[in-house]
Amino acid sequence: MTAQKPVPAMLAVDWGGTWCRMGLIDRHGEVLWQARRPNPRGGSRTDYLSLGASLLNEAFSVEDIRALGIGIAVAGPVDPDSGILYQPPNLMALDGISLKRMWREQYGLPVLVGNDANYAAVGEFHFGAGRDAAQAGHPPRSLFYVTVSTGIGGGAVMRVPGLPEPSLLLGANGLTAEVGHTTVDTAVGAPLCQCGKRGCLEAVSSGTAIANYARAALAEGRHRDSALAAIALEELSSRAVVAAGVQGDAFANAVMSRACEGLAVGLANMVHLFNPDLIILGGGVSEGLTQLNLLPTIRQGIHDRLMSELHKAFDLVPSVLGDNSGLLGAAAAAWEGSEL
Amino acid sequence: MTAQKPVPAMLAVDWGGTWCRMGLIDRHGEVLWQARRPNPRGGSRTDYLSLGASLLNEAFSVEDIRALGIGIAVAGPVDPDSGILYQPPNLMALDGISLKRMWREQYGLPVLVGNDANYAAVGEFHFGAGRDAAQAGHPPRSLFYVTVSTGIGGGAVMRVPGLPEPSLLLGANGLTAEVGHTTVDTAVGAPLCQCGKRGCLEAVSSGTAIANYARAALAEGRHRDSALAAIALEELSSRAVVAAGVQGDAFANAVMSRACEGLAVGLANMVHLFNPDLIILGGGVSEGLTQLNLLPTIRQGIHDRLMSELHKAFDLVPSVLGDNSGLLGAAAAAWEGSEL
Repeated sequence: MTAQKPVPAMLAVDWGGTWCRMGLIDRHGEVLWQARRPNPRGGSRTDYLSLGASLLNEAFSVEDIRALGIGIAVAGPVDPDSGILYQPPNLMALDGISLKRMWREQYGLPVLVGNDANYAAVGEFHFGAGRDAAQAGHPPRSLFYVTVSTGIGGGAVMRVPGLPEPSLLLGANGLTAEVGHTTVDTAVGAPLCQCGKRGCLEAVSSGTAIANYARAALAEGRHRDSALAAIALEELSSRAVVAAGVQGDAFANAVMSRACEGLAVGLANMVHLFNPDLIILGGGVSEGLTQLNLLPTIRQGIHDRLMSELHKAFDLVPSVLGDNSGLLGAAAAAWEGSEL
Repeated sequence: MTAQKPVPAMLAVDWGGTWCRMGLIDRHGEVLWQARRPNPRGGSRTDYLSLGASLLNEAFSVEDIRALGIGIAVAGPVDPDSGILYQPPNLMALDGISLKRMWREQYGLPVLVGNDANYAAVGEFHFGAGRDAAQAGHPPRSLFYVTVSTGIGGGAVMRVPGLPEPSLLLGANGLTAEVGHTTVDTAVGAPLCQCGKRGCLEAVSSGTAIANYARAALAEGRHRDSALAAIALEELSSRAVVAAGVQGDAFANAVMSRACEGLAVGLANMVHLFNPDLIILGGGVSEGLTQLNLLPTIRQGIHDRLMSELHKAFDLVPSVLGDNSGLLGAAAAAWEGSEL
């Protein structure tokens, strides 16, 4: 009996504000193994690192699969060179440390790290909406991924002369594509963002903003005929607004229209700067937008704000990978890195 | 007697709305020869092409210099692959043609073409403010060039993994970095832009916008104590506003402050998306901003709108190359292209 040759894979990590998820992913984006555990809320740095180590050990002990490298998507700002995390609001226990350096030394494997929205863009490019577009004969030359969820983030993948494939844009410190904190409402009384500024896209069109806006209007006693008026204010979520919209609730649909306006302004600004041919909407709120058939409305809103016909030559599509985009992006980045 | 070996150079072209300029530029950005002629205003396509051919012939007949290739910066949208110009507002005689294809066939040399603001970014990177930063120990990893002049344009040069040097970002069709048409005023009555939209940066902070705003206020009979009130309305220019500002004129300085506000909003949005470490202000109005010592004001205005401390780690500097940035950028792009 001969030993079976192990299947090569990348160990992908997606460490978010709630879960630490890991997967073993092959060259084609197939998930060969996957596991997740909830973060130790309120735990110390050691608690978090133990959780990571324990999941890593599980992954390394999966039979017949050999991890060639590690790719890590994290929910927060991260320097791609040093791997250091900078004050990740939802992962503060890991502030200032470099999983990249730590795990590279510990496991002797190449490690790449990136912001989760950036890596989601890489995932969609290689294994999701970008791959679909390429297979349909339109390989994307400039792809922009937006996640509309509790917050709003983004990632950009663009062709550059001299490279065979489009590349993730990292900027000076890995902090590109923060479309959620571009200004889409310049009024003095524009909604306040959690970042401290007013009028950010995130403060107008995120799940949090949708819920806040609906809650404020209902608290004033307006829209009593809306189905949303029957929900306890503290339980009102963007998900409930979407659900009511699907049922034809006029107030819910007005709330969602306002979110679409914000997205149109922010994405039109982005289109003028990145000239994308493919825009991908991911995240929970985007699923709601798709359900409500609002993508054509958003696309029209962007078109209305563009300076030239040529800028309008983009597709706007929902995420193909959904919750797995960050994980698959971390794997894709690790595979890419292994070929450099 | 032995023949002198000719000096290798690139033939750089900067074709703007007023002048067609050409230069022979060596590997280090030295201008070895330069000439310019005014556009044949109201002339036919043939008139424009004759002008180009005549200047090219002049350049090719310069003794002791051998052009290895041609780089062309044009004032308008251009597809970098096909070289086709798309409705360049100030060069409509050349709409739909490809100087790249035409001259490559005619002269048997490699030809590269790009938008003038994009190429100005390349010029500043290789031979201007970018080179200065590199020599001071801070080679830029993400450089954004903005030209504030009659209109407002831009160009982005960014590092990407796998390439030894930062690269010009082209997007899907060479239409990136159009910061002038991002929205910086979302009010219903925001100033109208020549592109047809309201509230564009160009409609708030360009030379045209500065003159329009001053003119409108003076036409209403306000600010009679300003030195600008003595100028015939139709002769009022942004240059006159800057000159009055330098003399301490309060109204002129208020007009310039408003332009700075617009720049702060537009550039803060850009910083969230490109995460630059070097922002370069070029164009005639920027010279005025520098004269009035307004760059620290603009930088502070950008800082006030940024989501994180790390995003603030950029320098904001005036253009080093001035009027020559497009020409030197065309040369730099041609030199870069010759090495691929």
